[in-house]
Amino acid sequence: MIPMNLLGAGKKATYLNTGVWSKKAIKEARLFGEINVAYSSEEQKFNRVPTEDEYSVPEDSEYLYLVSNNTIYGTQFPTFPTTDKMLVCDMSSDILSRRLDVSKFGLIFAGAQKNMGPAGVTVVIIRDDLLDRTPEKIPTMLCYKTHADNDSMFNTPPCFSIYVVGEVLKWLKKQGGVVAMEKRNQEKAALLYAAIDATDYYRGHAEPASRSLMNISFNLPSPELEAQFIGEATKVGLNGLKGHRSIGGCRASIYNAFPREGVVKLVEFMQEFEKNNPA
Amino acid sequence: MIPMNLLGAGKKATYLNTGVWSKKAIKEARLFGEINVAYSSEEQKFNRVPTEDEYSVPEDSEYLYLVSNNTIYGTQFPTFPTTDKMLVCDMSSDILSRRLDVSKFGLIFAGAQKNMGPAGVTVVIIRDDLLDRTPEKIPTMLCYKTHADNDSMFNTPPCFSIYVVGEVLKWLKKQGGVVAMEKRNQEKAALLYAAIDATDYYRGHAEPASRSLMNISFNLPSPELEAQFIGEATKVGLNGLKGHRSIGGCRASIYNAFPREGVVKLVEFMQEFEKNNPA
Repeated sequence: MIPMNLLGAGKKATYLNTGVWSKKAIKEARLFGEINVAYSSEEQKFNRVPTEDEYSVPEDSEYLYLVSNNTIYGTQFPTFPTTDKMLVCDMSSDILSRRLDVSKFGLIFAGAQKNMGPAGVTVVIIRDDLLDRTPEKIPTMLCYKTHADNDSMFNTPPCFSIYVVGEVLKWLKKQGGVVAMEKRNQEKAALLYAAIDATDYYRGHAEPASRSLMNISFNLPSPELEAQFIGEATKVGLNGLKGHRSIGGCRASIYNAFPREGVVKLVEFMQEFEKNNPA
Repeated sequence: MIPMNLLGAGKKATYLNTGVWSKKAIKEARLFGEINVAYSSEEQKFNRVPTEDEYSVPEDSEYLYLVSNNTIYGTQFPTFPTTDKMLVCDMSSDILSRRLDVSKFGLIFAGAQKNMGPAGVTVVIIRDDLLDRTPEKIPTMLCYKTHADNDSMFNTPPCFSIYVVGEVLKWLKKQGGVVAMEKRNQEKAALLYAAIDATDYYRGHAEPASRSLMNISFNLPSPELEAQFIGEATKVGLNGLKGHRSIGGCRASIYNAFPREGVVKLVEFMQEFEKNNPA
């Protein structure tokens, strides 16, 4: 919907290609405008995000598009670009996990299913002036203005999912809000990365400067040990550690809802596993 | 999505305009092809659907589009058109309420929120050969083939809503399936229409031959009596009887999940109300 609403014949935008979601976004955007891919880490298996001196944003770009956190590869922009161009950002996997300056963004969107609620509802934060930019002749349902003008009730909205998002937001507030969540997420990730860095047995997929606080992707000395690791972890209640099939290995997803105690337990399990299964 | 997938430059389709949903569908379809509106009951406040001799479908139409049941006006196609052209049908408000010959349809779609489950999930039944008709250059997410090829999991689907639909389908099966549901719906609607026809006090909005088995729209002698009727009904647990703001009056929605006993109670209340509040 973003390029459909914000681009159009002759219009340009700049994209940073840091994973499968940005790659898909680029493919779709090319249907609606001229897309400049200013940076790509695809050849390094998306193991990093760029620093600002690694790309530039042409003057005629309508916006700079980035995916804030890349779940599969465990990378995340530690800070957001400082360009004068407005940012458009997919925050599906790290919204509400850390503070940010919303004023730099023209549009933020996030599928709820990581930090906000059930799959099936997407939050969009859009700058008011962008609502009138939509080219003519796009379908009504795909026009951001339609939803803004109708308080998100142009169609029957997914009421139950929205209700659950509301409950999650109340919970988040009770935890101390985004400020407390950010601190907790930093602590959780630090514990886990420290465990990985403490030994050569575990190797992080992401370059240290690009490490995600949400998804920690790592490898063991061999695929066999990885399979054994995932199997034994599942038996003691540490589920979902299998990495995405596109890069293999292991991945710990420690979203807002995942407790610090779970990370401590995982770290202990990792140390134990290494001792019992030398490379 | 339908015209986007099935039409394209120079292609034509025929639409029957029997209510707000068909009207909206026509507006969107015009973005993607040449639309022939073969029938409209808009001037009669959509109080009827056409019989087959009231419209014709040109030979060069890709499909004939209709909305099976019109919730606001309480009209419903009692039978489906027999044209050789494939039918494309919005069954959002009466799917699973009666038997039908699926083979006549190229595409059936239905938002779940009436007879199938929670808002936020839509069921699409599409003929296999139509999957390859999509013009180039439409966004991947809006292409039916994408979803068919990926078992409806191209994106993270609304899992909870789909789970609830599954539970509703199990319930439906236990009730005796669509056959039993159709019989029950006919009985429920017959009870209510008999009550309306038994007196001049209540007047049905829809012409008798177009009456819906799902939504029964009717009027009382005055808007004041209607307001009083709705208020008193709510007090005895008969909720949601207010008609849609576009036509006013009263409306009883008696979808699959609404029990026969509820209809009996409503009929008794109607008789009582008329006695106590003569026109």
